[in-house]
Amino acid sequence: MSLIMHTLHVELGERTYPVYIGRDLLSDNKLLAQHIAGSQVVLISNETIAPLYAERVRSALGDRQLITEIVLPDGEQYKSLDTLSDIFDRVMADKHSRNTTFIALGGGVVGDITGFAAACYQRGVNFIQVPTTLLAQVDSSVGGKTAVNHPQGKNMIGAFYQPQAVLIDINTLQTLPAREFSAGLAEVVKYGLISDEPFYRWLQEHMPRLLAREEAALAEAIERSCANKAQVVAEDEREGGLRAILNLGHTFGHAIETGQGYGKWLHGEAVATGMLLALELSARRGWIEATEVEDFRTLLLDIHLPVAPPADMDAEAFLELMAHDKKVIDGKLRVILLKAIGSACIVDDVTDTEIRGLLAPS
Amino acid sequence: MSLIMHTLHVELGERTYPVYIGRDLLSDNKLLAQHIAGSQVVLISNETIAPLYAERVRSALGDRQLITEIVLPDGEQYKSLDTLSDIFDRVMADKHSRNTTFIALGGGVVGDITGFAAACYQRGVNFIQVPTTLLAQVDSSVGGKTAVNHPQGKNMIGAFYQPQAVLIDINTLQTLPAREFSAGLAEVVKYGLISDEPFYRWLQEHMPRLLAREEAALAEAIERSCANKAQVVAEDEREGGLRAILNLGHTFGHAIETGQGYGKWLHGEAVATGMLLALELSARRGWIEATEVEDFRTLLLDIHLPVAPPADMDAEAFLELMAHDKKVIDGKLRVILLKAIGSACIVDDVTDTEIRGLLAPS
Repeated sequence: MSLIMHTLHVELGERTYPVYIGRDLLSDNKLLAQHIAGSQVVLISNETIAPLYAERVRSALGDRQLITEIVLPDGEQYKSLDTLSDIFDRVMADKHSRNTTFIALGGGVVGDITGFAAACYQRGVNFIQVPTTLLAQVDSSVGGKTAVNHPQGKNMIGAFYQPQAVLIDINTLQTLPAREFSAGLAEVVKYGLISDEPFYRWLQEHMPRLLAREEAALAEAIERSCANKAQVVAEDEREGGLRAILNLGHTFGHAIETGQGYGKWLHGEAVATGMLLALELSARRGWIEATEVEDFRTLLLDIHLPVAPPADMDAEAFLELMAHDKKVIDGKLRVILLKAIGSACIVDDVTDTEIRGLLAPS
Repeated sequence: MSLIMHTLHVELGERTYPVYIGRDLLSDNKLLAQHIAGSQVVLISNETIAPLYAERVRSALGDRQLITEIVLPDGEQYKSLDTLSDIFDRVMADKHSRNTTFIALGGGVVGDITGFAAACYQRGVNFIQVPTTLLAQVDSSVGGKTAVNHPQGKNMIGAFYQPQAVLIDINTLQTLPAREFSAGLAEVVKYGLISDEPFYRWLQEHMPRLLAREEAALAEAIERSCANKAQVVAEDEREGGLRAILNLGHTFGHAIETGQGYGKWLHGEAVATGMLLALELSARRGWIEATEVEDFRTLLLDIHLPVAPPADMDAEAFLELMAHDKKVIDGKLRVILLKAIGSACIVDDVTDTEIRGLLAPS
């Protein structure tokens, strides 16, 4: 039996949508039916997820007139314009109308590309996110960022486009590989750091329960993560200002991902190390205590996340890669730092000298 | 010297933008500067337009830090995902930031693909429309529809995305080939038919001045066309309902374009014949007088527009092609008809029998 444990709403005026968190939601036919307007569905997943969960969603869809199932190859390298083009070929071949609904069943790659396909197909059709990884559940499924990668940069081609609903089925976390689970926890911890100190303290205390994948703890952590993100997104849907704080650790993290080649480091792993660098920089500026940096390092080690950049990347490599980041505006690099635990700020005065000091071999 | 003859605003809340109509606007550096936020510009045109007008815009842009000029091949067949991908390659290679501005200098194809590229690049950057054909000036430059074609259907992949401003330089019409000019007039006449009877009567009276490309008449006709379109778009940005009336003649027209292969009939030519079919159908339902249909046929002939579908397309060909149109919702074909001159309506009860009657060999 399915069970909704938490429901929250991402408040965006007429584009407000619900996020359901609970058990067995992906086979909840009534919940799905509430958010599917027509009789046509495009179900997009990948080779890893489809064998595990696609059948349950298909059954829950019942006897709809037209269900096109698209199974993508698994991997960040397929989050491309080419894959997008393949999706449009299938959807056009099956003659889906403007009234169709796209369902993204999978992790961040499936969610991002499905969302972008839905944003563009006939200039926008409905879609539903069913994220199956912890990272997607707390990050990419809330906020309406959709995209594909360009060979020269991640997420460079995309749209802000909101789903009709997000169904977070925490059962899917039981089949998630340990490394991906840990990477997802990096983003969970991020929400505590940027905007919710009590949640951060809760995470420090309850991390063993999360690592044991206890259902109640997972639902709680996901709900508080999504609530934090939803609040930031509601205030700044199109990343005019505040929303940038969600990028804590991402400027350094993207440099690591790009420098190493997509997929070698998981996104959450790169962000974890990036956050540690951001905290270290914040401490050097005297904004947070050095002991907080050490406690955070300990937390990352408990989660089995990396606490140092790749050995082959020096400060110059970081500076070069960061210069071509979306977060550069007219030549100025924006970095997210902490004024305190639970309080992020956006700075654009980080000097190359500071970066070199931070990344110098100790 | 440049001269703004008319300014109107497309009212879309925080996305409201101005449409300037006048003389020599594309070389008006002050007007351009008002709508370019940063120091980076991507100027997109095509092989036909670039030699005529690109230098003027480039000069008006002055000494901006980074100007990337992209010249597309000319033709509807290049309004594709492949061309879009080429644009992203160029823009990424030149490292344009989120603060860049795309300028579309050309007809509908350039405007549609540039607008869609701007909508997607880094999830949305600013863009300015500088339409150089009559069709683009009165149609695609107002309303925020951007798109590329899919091999199986026109405009199937796109976004609703508004420009910062539209600069309509009527001088560019002096170099427009006669056939394209006539095709543009088809859309001008459309606005009179769907929502503005006084404008339709004005057009019947002043068509000789327009065909002679008199400056004041052109500016007047463009202003009234844009004003009519802006009003419809303001009331229904995302084509929930009312906006569909802009598709008068388009369901038949798209069938002709698709059936003949893109580019054989110009869009405006196909729409002209499509509108005549829609008026004929309206008259058969008793909603408008048969004499109005005859007067409209005469007007089309004056403009040198076609007044009959291609000889090789019978009713069955139309029915098959129309069944896979964006305007089909859950199996029901929506067609725009006239309740009176200046008053369009959306109907979804047109039967195959009616279509066969309309298109039967006489």
